[in-house]
Amino acid sequence: MVSSPNQATRILRNTSVAITAEGDGLGVVERAAVVIECGNVAWVGAERELPSSFADADVHDLGGRLLSPGLVDCHAHPIFAGRRADEFARRARGDHYLDIAREGGGIMATVRATREASAKALVDLACTRMNYALRSGTTTMEAKSGYDLTCDGELRLLKIASQVGQQHAMTMRPTLLGAHALPPEFADDREGFVQVVVEEMIPRAAHEQLAEAVDIYCDEGAFTLLETRTILEAAKRHKLATKAHVGQFADLGAPQLLAELGSLSGDHLEVVSDEGLAAMGKAGVLATMLPGACVQLRMAPPPVAAMRKAGVAMAIGSDLNPGTSHSESLPLAMWLATTHYGMSVEEAWLGVTRNAARALGDASIGRIAAGSPADLVVWNAEVPAEIPYHFGVNLAARVYKNGRTVWDASAND
Amino acid sequence: MVSSPNQATRILRNTSVAITAEGDGLGVVERAAVVIECGNVAWVGAERELPSSFADADVHDLGGRLLSPGLVDCHAHPIFAGRRADEFARRARGDHYLDIAREGGGIMATVRATREASAKALVDLACTRMNYALRSGTTTMEAKSGYDLTCDGELRLLKIASQVGQQHAMTMRPTLLGAHALPPEFADDREGFVQVVVEEMIPRAAHEQLAEAVDIYCDEGAFTLLETRTILEAAKRHKLATKAHVGQFADLGAPQLLAELGSLSGDHLEVVSDEGLAAMGKAGVLATMLPGACVQLRMAPPPVAAMRKAGVAMAIGSDLNPGTSHSESLPLAMWLATTHYGMSVEEAWLGVTRNAARALGDASIGRIAAGSPADLVVWNAEVPAEIPYHFGVNLAARVYKNGRTVWDASAND
Repeated sequence: MVSSPNQATRILRNTSVAITAEGDGLGVVERAAVVIECGNVAWVGAERELPSSFADADVHDLGGRLLSPGLVDCHAHPIFAGRRADEFARRARGDHYLDIAREGGGIMATVRATREASAKALVDLACTRMNYALRSGTTTMEAKSGYDLTCDGELRLLKIASQVGQQHAMTMRPTLLGAHALPPEFADDREGFVQVVVEEMIPRAAHEQLAEAVDIYCDEGAFTLLETRTILEAAKRHKLATKAHVGQFADLGAPQLLAELGSLSGDHLEVVSDEGLAAMGKAGVLATMLPGACVQLRMAPPPVAAMRKAGVAMAIGSDLNPGTSHSESLPLAMWLATTHYGMSVEEAWLGVTRNAARALGDASIGRIAAGSPADLVVWNAEVPAEIPYHFGVNLAARVYKNGRTVWDASAND
Repeated sequence: MVSSPNQATRILRNTSVAITAEGDGLGVVERAAVVIECGNVAWVGAERELPSSFADADVHDLGGRLLSPGLVDCHAHPIFAGRRADEFARRARGDHYLDIAREGGGIMATVRATREASAKALVDLACTRMNYALRSGTTTMEAKSGYDLTCDGELRLLKIASQVGQQHAMTMRPTLLGAHALPPEFADDREGFVQVVVEEMIPRAAHEQLAEAVDIYCDEGAFTLLETRTILEAAKRHKLATKAHVGQFADLGAPQLLAELGSLSGDHLEVVSDEGLAAMGKAGVLATMLPGACVQLRMAPPPVAAMRKAGVAMAIGSDLNPGTSHSESLPLAMWLATTHYGMSVEEAWLGVTRNAARALGDASIGRIAAGSPADLVVWNAEVPAEIPYHFGVNLAARVYKNGRTVWDASAND
């Protein structure tokens, strides 16, 4: 990884800057400049309006290329061990995800491998994944726990996420997903497990400041609506934000619950009622689209048109996980969102920047504005549409994190 | 680009080697070694059976990683100018490809830009694309003409393909696609244009040895079955191989024609009859799958199960082109083939190696065997299934072309 000092004031000029403003559009400023000072954006605007106070700064000419905020991955499971390529091969031959899970594969296969892995091994694996993500333009990623399912183990995974964030340029945003699946130890005692989540995991994660949010998998074959309410209400009592995996296979009514609780987002939503969307739209709960998993599971896309109609803002996540979406790439998720989901180019960009930041409860990132961290990506592209349009290869030319250059593709030419 | 001398004998050891053998499987040899001599593979097999005659060679330990043949892209349109990101944005909003084409977009937009571009500009653009492809593991790529549609212009594009092959490590395999679309100059004279292809383009391309094969777009809105027969029969008379884009939107009966003519492949085939597949299977005509375009156009996948049943071998191409599939990545095409098409991991690998080589009429590449060129890829993976399984990021760690290292990802760490 390339690294540069972040002290001197620098001007990035001769660029088109995207996602600068509020509102629905991308706020593209052509022939623009961005000033970086002390790791933050100090100024952004048309180059001809650059204040003379920055006259002494180092100037970097971006050759007309596109500059965007660092991408924000608001739904990811990056802390795990083990490999499930064999399951992928089975699914390619037509076996169903839920059948594989019933046979001990699926999430439980990863739980076994993750429980056995040392902290060092898990940190190393996650850092390798963060390299792939950073090179693809992501500068902030959610890190869900959920592959241990014991109280101590889930807290261990959250601590590992924090350690990855300290070692790696990527900012990690930890989410407790203790209720990812019912662990084998509680196979006959669902209530007992919910009690562990509510009375042990959530209080400890909150007290030790290891998580920002609590997530739960509320679906057919996972947790019920009532269990979801119990767990997310406990999270609220401990001042943690809430979110849920909902409607990947069946709509159990969770969208209305998320609206009632003022949650950050409902994620997946391939199956969702108009009433659920209306409630989400009214309450300002985001819909997080996960097209990698949707395409891989050969499912019909979520009702994007109905989401628009209901005023539900859409974010897009990689859903990086070892089962249904083994990908760190948000640009690829943008391509899938525009092609398979019928989202517009604008919706795709906002989905991995401003709306993804909202889905993490942080308005300071996912945009280029004075005062925001200088998390920036220079793209081998001139207009925003090129990123989903030119797919499957990495167009990120340079990535800045807090003003430092943390990836430069030209180092390899 | 990194480059190393190709003279010394080298042993790549501590690797799993894939696609070594004939037959249906991947022929994986674990704990294997490959010997490179004078740009070719001199030996491949289990490490413990390595002949003592290679005792003096340089040894490179691959750390247990997977080694595959360089990928072969048997269907690509890499020689073009212009950008159609705006059309992509329109299609994301729901506009249909054929409607955009009728309004002067589509292939004709690229024809206008390509006709206007200098040879140098076209070479530079193509070399940039070849960088993306090489880094994704491709070492041989077809180069179709088809974005000029005049005789001189089509030959110019074939010469440019040849020049790219001389300047770049990628091997280019030129195909004359003069009958890609009816050019505006012949809008009212289809017969006149077919005559130009048959009496001028094909004889000159053959005489000047600028093309190995002749391709035609036989579909609704493109060329008819009769026009296809006329053009491909002319190609045969000039000893050029034949192939066709068929059944992307409608089955005009071309599969049977391709079988009759002993063509290399029928490409796309989203819409194809059982009779057509039976004829192809019997005649040994390959089906080239192009999942990038299929997913991007939101179409149902081709009948893969029927192809298997009819004994039709399947290749997979990137379909790199500025309209429907702007991607250089075969690993991504493998992911789409396994997820959207339901191809197995084995079929995906053979589709981009041995079968793709067959679709180019060249059995010497797309496999690791003594005597074949040392076009090799070291993957950040241990088993073949990981390549489609871990998608959207580049797992190619090192690429050898004729024994030379032409890409090394670790140069960037």
